Amino acid sequence: MNEETIRALLESVHQGSCSPDKALHQLKDLPFENLDFARLDHHRALRTGQAEVIFCQGKQPDHIISILKHLGRKAENVLATRLDPHHAETILPHFPEAYYDQQAHCLLLRPLKEPAIPGKILIMTAGTADLSVAQEAWLTARYMGHDVDTLFDVGVAGIHRLLGQRQLMDRAEVIIVVAGMEGALASVVGGLVEQPVIAVPTSVGYGAHFQGLAALLSMLNSCASGIGVVNIDNGFGAASLASAIVRRITRDR
Amino acid sequence: MNEETIRALLESVHQGSCSPDKALHQLKDLPFENLDFARLDHHRALRTGQAEVIFCQGKQPDHIISILKHLGRKAENVLATRLDPHHAETILPHFPEAYYDQQAHCLLLRPLKEPAIPGKILIMTAGTADLSVAQEAWLTARYMGHDVDTLFDVGVAGIHRLLGQRQLMDRAEVIIVVAGMEGALASVVGGLVEQPVIAVPTSVGYGAHFQGLAALLSMLNSCASGIGVVNIDNGFGAASLASAIVRRITRDR
Amino acid sequence: MNEETIRALLESVHQGSCSPDKALHQLKDLPFENLDFARLDHHRALRTGQAEVIFCQGKQPDHIISILKHLGRKAENVLATRLDPHHAETILPHFPEAYYDQQAHCLLLRPLKEPAIPGKILIMTAGTADLSVAQEAWLTARYMGHDVDTLFDVGVAGIHRLLGQRQLMDRAEVIIVVAGMEGALASVVGGLVEQPVIAVPTSVGYGAHFQGLAALLSMLNSCASGIGVVNIDNGFGAASLASAIVRRITRDR
Amino acid sequence: MNEETIRALLESVHQGSCSPDKALHQLKDLPFENLDFARLDHHRALRTGQAEVIFCQGKQPDHIISILKHLGRKAENVLATRLDPHHAETILPHFPEAYYDQQAHCLLLRPLKEPAIPGKILIMTAGTADLSVAQEAWLTARYMGHDVDTLFDVGVAGIHRLLGQRQLMDRAEVIIVVAGMEGALASVVGGLVEQPVIAVPTSVGYGAHFQGLAALLSMLNSCASGIGVVNIDNGFGAASLASAIVRRITRDR
Amino acid sequence: MNEETIRALLESVHQGSCSPDKALHQLKDLPFENLDFARLDHHRALRTGQAEVIFCQGKQPDHIISILKHLGRKAENVLATRLDPHHAETILPHFPEAYYDQQAHCLLLRPLKEPAIPGKILIMTAGTADLSVAQEAWLTARYMGHDVDTLFDVGVAGIHRLLGQRQLMDRAEVIIVVAGMEGALASVVGGLVEQPVIAVPTSVGYGAHFQGLAALLSMLNSCASGIGVVNIDNGFGAASLASAIVRRITRDR
Amino acid sequence: MNEETIRALLESVHQGSCSPDKALHQLKDLPFENLDFARLDHHRALRTGQAEVIFCQGKQPDHIISILKHLGRKAENVLATRLDPHHAETILPHFPEAYYDQQAHCLLLRPLKEPAIPGKILIMTAGTADLSVAQEAWLTARYMGHDVDTLFDVGVAGIHRLLGQRQLMDRAEVIIVVAGMEGALASVVGGLVEQPVIAVPTSVGYGAHFQGLAALLSMLNSCASGIGVVNIDNGFGAASLASAIVRRITRDR
Amino acid sequence: MNEETIRALLESVHQGSCSPDKALHQLKDLPFENLDFARLDHHRALRTGQAEVIFCQGKQPDHIISILKHLGRKAENVLATRLDPHHAETILPHFPEAYYDQQAHCLLLRPLKEPAIPGKILIMTAGTADLSVAQEAWLTARYMGHDVDTLFDVGVAGIHRLLGQRQLMDRAEVIIVVAGMEGALASVVGGLVEQPVIAVPTSVGYGAHFQGLAALLSMLNSCASGIGVVNIDNGFGAASLASAIVRRITRDR
Amino acid sequence: MNEETIRALLESVHQGSCSPDKALHQLKDLPFENLDFARLDHHRALRTGQAEVIFCQGKQPDHIISILKHLGRKAENVLATRLDPHHAETILPHFPEAYYDQQAHCLLLRPLKEPAIPGKILIMTAGTADLSVAQEAWLTARYMGHDVDTLFDVGVAGIHRLLGQRQLMDRAEVIIVVAGMEGALASVVGGLVEQPVIAVPTSVGYGAHFQGLAALLSMLNSCASGIGVVNIDNGFGAASLASAIVRRITRDR
Repeated sequence: MNEETIRALLESVHQGSCSPDKALHQLKDLPFENLDFARLDHHRALRTGQAEVIFCQGKQPDHIISILKHLGRKAENVLATRLDPHHAETILPHFPEAYYDQQAHCLLLRPLKEPAIPGKILIMTAGTADLSVAQEAWLTARYMGHDVDTLFDVGVAGIHRLLGQRQLMDRAEVIIVVAGMEGALASVVGGLVEQPVIAVPTSVGYGAHFQGLAALLSMLNSCASGIGVVNIDNGFGAASLASAIVRRITRDR
Repeated sequence: MNEETIRALLESVHQGSCSPDKALHQLKDLPFENLDFARLDHHRALRTGQAEVIFCQGKQPDHIISILKHLGRKAENVLATRLDPHHAETILPHFPEAYYDQQAHCLLLRPLKEPAIPGKILIMTAGTADLSVAQEAWLTARYMGHDVDTLFDVGVAGIHRLLGQRQLMDRAEVIIVVAGMEGALASVVGGLVEQPVIAVPTSVGYGAHFQGLAALLSMLNSCASGIGVVNIDNGFGAASLASAIVRRITRDR
Repeated sequence: MNEETIRALLESVHQGSCSPDKALHQLKDLPFENLDFARLDHHRALRTGQAEVIFCQGKQPDHIISILKHLGRKAENVLATRLDPHHAETILPHFPEAYYDQQAHCLLLRPLKEPAIPGKILIMTAGTADLSVAQEAWLTARYMGHDVDTLFDVGVAGIHRLLGQRQLMDRAEVIIVVAGMEGALASVVGGLVEQPVIAVPTSVGYGAHFQGLAALLSMLNSCASGIGVVNIDNGFGAASLASAIVRRITRDR
Repeated sequence: MNEETIRALLESVHQGSCSPDKALHQLKDLPFENLDFARLDHHRALRTGQAEVIFCQGKQPDHIISILKHLGRKAENVLATRLDPHHAETILPHFPEAYYDQQAHCLLLRPLKEPAIPGKILIMTAGTADLSVAQEAWLTARYMGHDVDTLFDVGVAGIHRLLGQRQLMDRAEVIIVVAGMEGALASVVGGLVEQPVIAVPTSVGYGAHFQGLAALLSMLNSCASGIGVVNIDNGFGAASLASAIVRRITRDR
Repeated sequence: MNEETIRALLESVHQGSCSPDKALHQLKDLPFENLDFARLDHHRALRTGQAEVIFCQGKQPDHIISILKHLGRKAENVLATRLDPHHAETILPHFPEAYYDQQAHCLLLRPLKEPAIPGKILIMTAGTADLSVAQEAWLTARYMGHDVDTLFDVGVAGIHRLLGQRQLMDRAEVIIVVAGMEGALASVVGGLVEQPVIAVPTSVGYGAHFQGLAALLSMLNSCASGIGVVNIDNGFGAASLASAIVRRITRDR
Repeated sequence: MNEETIRALLESVHQGSCSPDKALHQLKDLPFENLDFARLDHHRALRTGQAEVIFCQGKQPDHIISILKHLGRKAENVLATRLDPHHAETILPHFPEAYYDQQAHCLLLRPLKEPAIPGKILIMTAGTADLSVAQEAWLTARYMGHDVDTLFDVGVAGIHRLLGQRQLMDRAEVIIVVAGMEGALASVVGGLVEQPVIAVPTSVGYGAHFQGLAALLSMLNSCASGIGVVNIDNGFGAASLASAIVRRITRDR
Repeated sequence: MNEETIRALLESVHQGSCSPDKALHQLKDLPFENLDFARLDHHRALRTGQAEVIFCQGKQPDHIISILKHLGRKAENVLATRLDPHHAETILPHFPEAYYDQQAHCLLLRPLKEPAIPGKILIMTAGTADLSVAQEAWLTARYMGHDVDTLFDVGVAGIHRLLGQRQLMDRAEVIIVVAGMEGALASVVGGLVEQPVIAVPTSVGYGAHFQGLAALLSMLNSCASGIGVVNIDNGFGAASLASAIVRRITRDR
Repeated sequence: MNEETIRALLESVHQGSCSPDKALHQLKDLPFENLDFARLDHHRALRTGQAEVIFCQGKQPDHIISILKHLGRKAENVLATRLDPHHAETILPHFPEAYYDQQAHCLLLRPLKEPAIPGKILIMTAGTADLSVAQEAWLTARYMGHDVDTLFDVGVAGIHRLLGQRQLMDRAEVIIVVAGMEGALASVVGGLVEQPVIAVPTSVGYGAHFQGLAALLSMLNSCASGIGVVNIDNGFGAASLASAIVRRITRDR
């Protein structure tokens, strides 16, 4: 709801082409659709530059189906994250084009398209147990139109595996580091590169890992600067931030 | 220590212009300077694109003076963060050009120059009590060559103060949101803009704030996506990440 | 057991119409019923103005049935909260009029009546995943005789959805804000309205949400004043407090 | 910025008595004053029904003086909370009418007036060590125009001290319970009365009290319903909520 | 292994009735039985005055059976606590006299005898959801030979239920208070009686109860003195401590 | 306010020797004295068998002086705990007989008397750094009339220091174990003796000790049964519990 | 990748026997094998002296099978830890020689060999419920070629069980102490022996044990020095450290 | 008190050269000295192979002086750790040979001797702010007779500083890694070497570092195996463990 819109609206009121009541209505009639249990925000793409995503955790399957249908009518594609496999089974038959990714726990309403936005995002993981979170990030970034490289299982306990991959890092615009346990990979990468680094702590670990707390604190306290941290296991959030950065970087290309 | 350097070195060994011993020495003689108690990393600017910064907390004044002197010889300017006012008094007389910022608790070895890098960084705070952290971010960003806008005291308890400032937000490449208490400003800004948002929780609050934990958790769990979080009160870290993003964005301009 | 009662009792002892032993008995024979494993408190409605509610978590189905039967004899209706769906299946056949709400995990012994107490309570949620807690609050408020409005899915990541609903807020006597994740909705609402706001953090979130801790701390540290917080997911408690406030407000109407 | 104001503004645009530009200006020129480091919100009293309060923690004395002067010009009185005694000494000479309360750590710009709003607020404490927080609540409530009763040192370890004070409780519209240690007073009072109860955990305690965490958790988990909790030591917040409730209750009297 | 035993042993060595080697053997041959995976401590009853108890959590059924058999040969009776119902089904057929208590999750190898030790233990609970822990305490106390009274569902939200039961409290030697939620019952009882009070926090609650942490902290911070706290849900530990106290009290009767 | 008192009062009303109004007054006029900021509970000694104690933390010196004077008029002696040395200096001149213990941070209004109650309490510490807490326990126990033995610096890292002291343990009725660091002494003592053991975790430690949390959790999870735990550093609470037990044990002697 | 290797490589470049390109390749071609989802580190044995181990938690069965096959080709044996029994059932049929240990949740690709490295490791447990973790340590140590003694169920509640086993302790080079609950065994053993002690906290306990936190903090705060702590339930890590120490000790024998 | 000693004693009783009473006395007269407030353990050096160390935190200066005097009479040298500079000033005049290390906060009763035990200990730090803890470790190790190398400021944000120091690592028997912030250095070193690694988290950091918790959790969750962790800032403990390992390694040289 920016200044220009309001100014235009006011001008039309001034010129008599729009009544005060109608203008009031327009000022109030914000661009969301009311499903009673949910208010769909069709203009978010315009406002924040991001596409429609449904966070499914805690939502009932029939609600998800209803939201998917409404969003699907206006949006090119829809991504549903944190979707339980059992719920996916209930939901999939309603959407013939939809695809459910077992590892990422995500559903796509329609097939992915080829990357449309220049600039690569690199997704790295410390171990193979971090793959599920990395896959959520991969799917989100690809869904948002980005080109994604991956580099898996390069944790710091065998640091030569990482040092040999300088080229892959150099050609990325942004690097997402997904790591559980002590999450040290974020610090090592952050100290090697000049790109922005997005760190995703994962809940991979046991005992005093406290479901990701150890990796989260580790990343927040990184001795390398230039690192932004997202929530534990939040592959989606990391890809969203990466997307915002890359879209900004490549706006003028 | 990139591939090209090694290849060139190996070529000169191959051509006999460099002995194996000398090459070995070069491979080992990494670009840091040993002060015995500290190893100065002069090439970090080359490697990560960032200038020299000294984190002073826990360091003794004579160590800081020594590091400042060594770095000052090779770098254009040096920033010292988390410098205690009492230590600053001891240190300042050794460096006639230096300036100590009481609010940011930072020292600059030489005066700031005009912004050299295109693209604005916007620093917002929720309240006036967050100014100290915002100032650390401001000084860091300016020291790294950036142009910075500020928008202070626009917390969500009076959300109209924020909504009236859409233009300032629109012209920034990256937005840093500094907020204590419940840190809700990050979510509101994150839901309004398409730029990357960097959230800095501050330790401003009391009781169940637990020295910034409340704001930190709040920002990590933001319902708006595209937000990267740094450590509590870490204005320096936020500016470093903003700098990495803006330098990337404006590389080709 | 107020002063007047005691005074009357003492008067009747003084006048000989009541023996000391009998008076002692009355002073001791407080208005609860002993089921051996539970002491039912029939006079709570008189004392705190609230109706009978059974908190079922941790109770065995046969105990719940027994309590429902005893309470049901003297009370107009009974609400059972936190009732497991499996236990509900066991319990329902014993009470032909009873109704079990799947979303709220609550059982009502008899049908709800029309709202009897003037003054509206507004229940808002940040997302659709908070609906289960909101429904517990709704059922409780309605059971206690109140008129309830709802406004769902108006989280701060799309703040225009909220700002367009000023009228609904204005006509409520008390507002209950149900929110998970960073719980910022409570602060934004608290900054907009003059009514008392009751904030209910929910356990909706993941990772560093720590089962509702993030939202709880956020709400306790709200930069808006005039907000009372209840336990995580405690829709019942929020409605009870709202009821106490509204009954007080509308006492004289 | 309610609907009526916008409608009136739009009408005047429609009738030509106000130009679109001027209307735009008014829509943007929100009622706050910009001090550069702070944005004063003069209309908060209109919007949330509450008077001007400055939270001083983390603010510098000269900033506080400046804010007090600006607010003091338009508001009848100003309350400054969490004001350090040393800062108070610096600030007081600038305001001849001002008064600093040592126990509450609060400053009032001008003397308190007689209570103007009908309806009593009762402030209870469990111990004498909770008096500082209770005094902040008392001052805030009185500053907001309320009539306040107090009942101190009635903790549950000597429960007869409490039970003998039924009358004081009965005549209050709202009860604020201030308690440290295990905070059990809130539960006992909540089980005795029908009024809304606002619980303020204090940091009074030691060892496993963890600066108020024990009392906070205790109050959030109260077995009595109808209790709203505010932040640890937040006497101001409790009084604000009490004020919102009482103003609502007594609106029509 | 007290002084007298050693002195007697040394005397017999001195007198030649016991060889040094044999004495050494006796000094080393401490009274436990080695099952390879477990070392049974038959003399614990002598040493600490307590009977044999098996803590079953984390033990495999065949290990439990083996331990029960070995202990059962020398001890009059054996109590097994924290025994999973599924494991109980596997174990019961091996011991015809054994009895499994579903609520307490305990198994007794042989039937309980009449109380042999004078002096009553009173077990109180705040709610009916605390019964499972109370039952573990009851069974343990009875197994150790004590006479036990019970008083259930007397939580502080209806404090008159408690105040009417002064007699039961007065006739106990020790009082065990079992309470979840905010655990305030311990403080209220501790302020009313002169007997030692043992407080057992239970994990009954939700949200910010954090599996019993709220009740635990509450009890540790009780404003009433003379209260000893045991681990969350540790009915067994409470009864053991009560037993140690009562045996001490009634030693000379 | 026990049954007999009420019955007697009612009888006198019945017989006309006491008017209903006077009886009501007596029922309400509970035995505490109102100092406005504090309600002194003179009958606590009767009710819980314990003497008057003032917890000074958070109280102002003039309040403490006032309470000491009022309590001192009716009680034989008064103990003030957690009294800051600086406050003690202010307070001591008002009470010529008073004594301040620097190590225990306690003040006694009048000199200690010889132990009047049979039965020994043994206070053990793991290290010399625990002496301050042990001294608070010692003073409290002696003030309450008990005979106290001490055994200091017998931590488990040199377990032979402990095993050689069996006799001291054997002659105590109750054992208080004061320990910081990992608090293992409580478990070792608990496994050796048949007496009740009261464990006091101290805040002695650093790093991951978290101000006593490590020792507290350790003691709550002791593998030895029959141990009651009090708050961190709570020497007073431990002695109060020990006193309640010993008075019970020796009632009939 | 040590200095000698690089020097030799450079020499061969200098002598022309190796081209620069080939040398570059070798410098980059580090000794791991890329399975796309995992990078196998065959040279870890050379680098850290330890054999190949797969941490299976969070990995999918087909990934584990693939890794086992690749590692199995080059390594003498492979150990897979934290392997779920259900996954084990899927995996075992692919490897005829493999063995799955139900208690340790570990799989060995081929049978264990006789201990090859001199020097004993002693594994002690406090209780029988710690056996699962102890077994993981035992299997790991044996797999790494060590000779292992065990001493189970010697917790400090019956400290004589421990004191009688001095000989077993004396003949070990390193002692691993596995303990849950309050973990006091580590301190007692640490105070008795001169060998390095490795402490493994286990998650055995309940209530305020917080899944091993109590034992972990206890061991980190041990009053005995010379103790190294590993993560909760980390039997593998303890054995790895023990192995590193013993291999170092017995290098020259 | 090993088996041989007891056997010899028993033999002498058998032969009559020692009376039972005298033997009993010897068995009880364990080798510690009672200072009333402390029990000095002169034989600890024999038992655990470690020299006398006084942990001064929480001890009063006169107690420390007294302990130093008693230990100083029998031991060759004494180390006092965690000694406050102010206390050091009070204590130093009593001991002419003593030396106080400002950085390590340690006092040595007499000058250090040349290293007597073969085998090097390497102490590494991540930053210069960790030097204080490293110095405590250095002093302890040297006091215990070891040869120590140091490698400071080699944190992972500039990993080439570390990789160039392979030789120093290779020649150590044990490596102590001291690191604050995210503590990642421990993992990187652990993945590079075959020696045992002892990790010391430091409290260097801010915000979400929580006084060392972040580094502690990070080290406990290291993806590299073979790492033993000690308490936060516990340089002394790390050196003690290193000493135990090195003495074991070099016993036979």
